[in-house]
Amino acid sequence: MRVNFLLFPALTQLDLTGPFEVLARVPGFEIDLVSASMEPVRSDRGLVLMPTATLASALPCDVLVVPGGPGTDDILNDRPWVDFVARQGAQAKFVLGICTGSLLLGAAGLLRGRRAACHWQAIEFLASFGAIPDASRICVDGNIFTSGGVTSGIDMSLKAVALIRDEDTARQIQLQIEYDPAPPFAGGSPNTSPAHIVERCLDANSARREVRAAAVARAAQALER
Amino acid sequence: MRVNFLLFPALTQLDLTGPFEVLARVPGFEIDLVSASMEPVRSDRGLVLMPTATLASALPCDVLVVPGGPGTDDILNDRPWVDFVARQGAQAKFVLGICTGSLLLGAAGLLRGRRAACHWQAIEFLASFGAIPDASRICVDGNIFTSGGVTSGIDMSLKAVALIRDEDTARQIQLQIEYDPAPPFAGGSPNTSPAHIVERCLDANSARREVRAAAVARAAQALER
Repeated sequence: MRVNFLLFPALTQLDLTGPFEVLARVPGFEIDLVSASMEPVRSDRGLVLMPTATLASALPCDVLVVPGGPGTDDILNDRPWVDFVARQGAQAKFVLGICTGSLLLGAAGLLRGRRAACHWQAIEFLASFGAIPDASRICVDGNIFTSGGVTSGIDMSLKAVALIRDEDTARQIQLQIEYDPAPPFAGGSPNTSPAHIVERCLDANSARREVRAAAVARAAQALER
Repeated sequence: MRVNFLLFPALTQLDLTGPFEVLARVPGFEIDLVSASMEPVRSDRGLVLMPTATLASALPCDVLVVPGGPGTDDILNDRPWVDFVARQGAQAKFVLGICTGSLLLGAAGLLRGRRAACHWQAIEFLASFGAIPDASRICVDGNIFTSGGVTSGIDMSLKAVALIRDEDTARQIQLQIEYDPAPPFAGGSPNTSPAHIVERCLDANSARREVRAAAVARAAQALER
C-alpha cells in the first residue's frame, strides 16, 4: 500500500506527524511526503520537515492523507495543489483529511454530498464545498475519513488502520504508542472546555478566520465553474 | 524561555512532535532542535526533520526536552550526547523526558533517587540509573517531568505548560489542538489492552529489548565510574 501525505508550508505539523506515526507502523505501508519541490518545508510553528516526492513526481497512491493548518488557506486556490488532490483523491482507495485538511478535499471536489469533519473553528466552511459538516471527532463516509482538529488525526488514523487492514494491527499500534490518553484537564472541545477558554481561542483566531473565509469563498467559486 | 529539544537519529518522531506542538504554542517560548550536526535527521519510521542547532552551538535553555525511541539506545553511551544532557539538564529550570527519553536522563545522572516514567516496555531499566520507576502516564518529581510511551508526551507537555506558565494557557492550547481524545478502541496501555495484543507488542520488540538491555547496562556502569 502506498500512502501519500501532502506536505505544504505552514501546515500544522501534528496533523501530519500524528497520523504518520500510526500509518508508518502498518507492515507494508510505504509512505511519501509530497510537496511542491524537494526543498525543506516549515510548519506554522517552525518545525522543518523534508519531502520525499513532489506534486510532479509522486506515484499514484492507495491512501491519500491531507493535513490542515493555516497553510491550507494558501493552497486552497493554488491549482497544482488542488489538482493533485482532485486527481490522486479520485484514484486512491482511501482519502484521509485531518483538521482543516478537509477544506482542501472540499476545494478539490471530493466532498460533494459527503459528511465530513473539520477543526471546530472551521467546520462551517465545509458547506461551501457541498459537504455536510459533521461535528464528530472521527467521520467516515464511504472511503473518505475526516477528523476534527489536530490531535483527532491520531484517533482517526487508528480507526482507518482497523478498517483498511485489521483491528488487531490498529490495537497493536495503539499499545506501541501507548495511546491511553489522560489529558490533565477536562476540555479539548468547544463543548467540554470552559467558556472563557473558548473565547480566548476565538479571539486569537479572528485574523486567521477572515483570511480563511476569503480563501474558501474563492475556492468554492472556482469549484462551481 | 528557551526550549531545547534533543533531535537524534532513529528517535520516535511523535515523542518530539507531540510536545513540540504544545510547547511551540506558548507565547514567548523559543524552540531549538539540537542535533550532533546540522544535517537532516531521520526518525525510526523515516520522517526527516531539520535541526536548528548543534550540541556545540546550542544556547543554554530553560526547558530541556528529551524524546525517546530506538535511537536512544544508540546515544546512551555516546559521550557528546550524554554530556550535553547532563550539562544542560543540570542548568535548565525544567527537564522533560518522553518515553525512553527518560533512560537518557538516567544515563546523564539526572534521575538518581527521583521518580520517573518511561515507555511500558522499558520502564524497568530506569532502576539501573538509580531512578524509582513510576508507571504513571505523567510523572512530576521536582523540576523533572517524565511520561510513558510516545503519545503520553502530549498529556505531559500540557501539564508542564500549566505548571511552568499557567493553567489557562495550557487549556487554550488543548482546545486549539482539539485534544479531547476518543480512541476508537479501549486499550493503549498494558493494563487496558487485550492480552494477545500485549503479546504481539512484546514479540515484535524482543530484538530491540536485547539491544536496549546491553546499552543500559553499559551506560549504568559508566555512570557509576
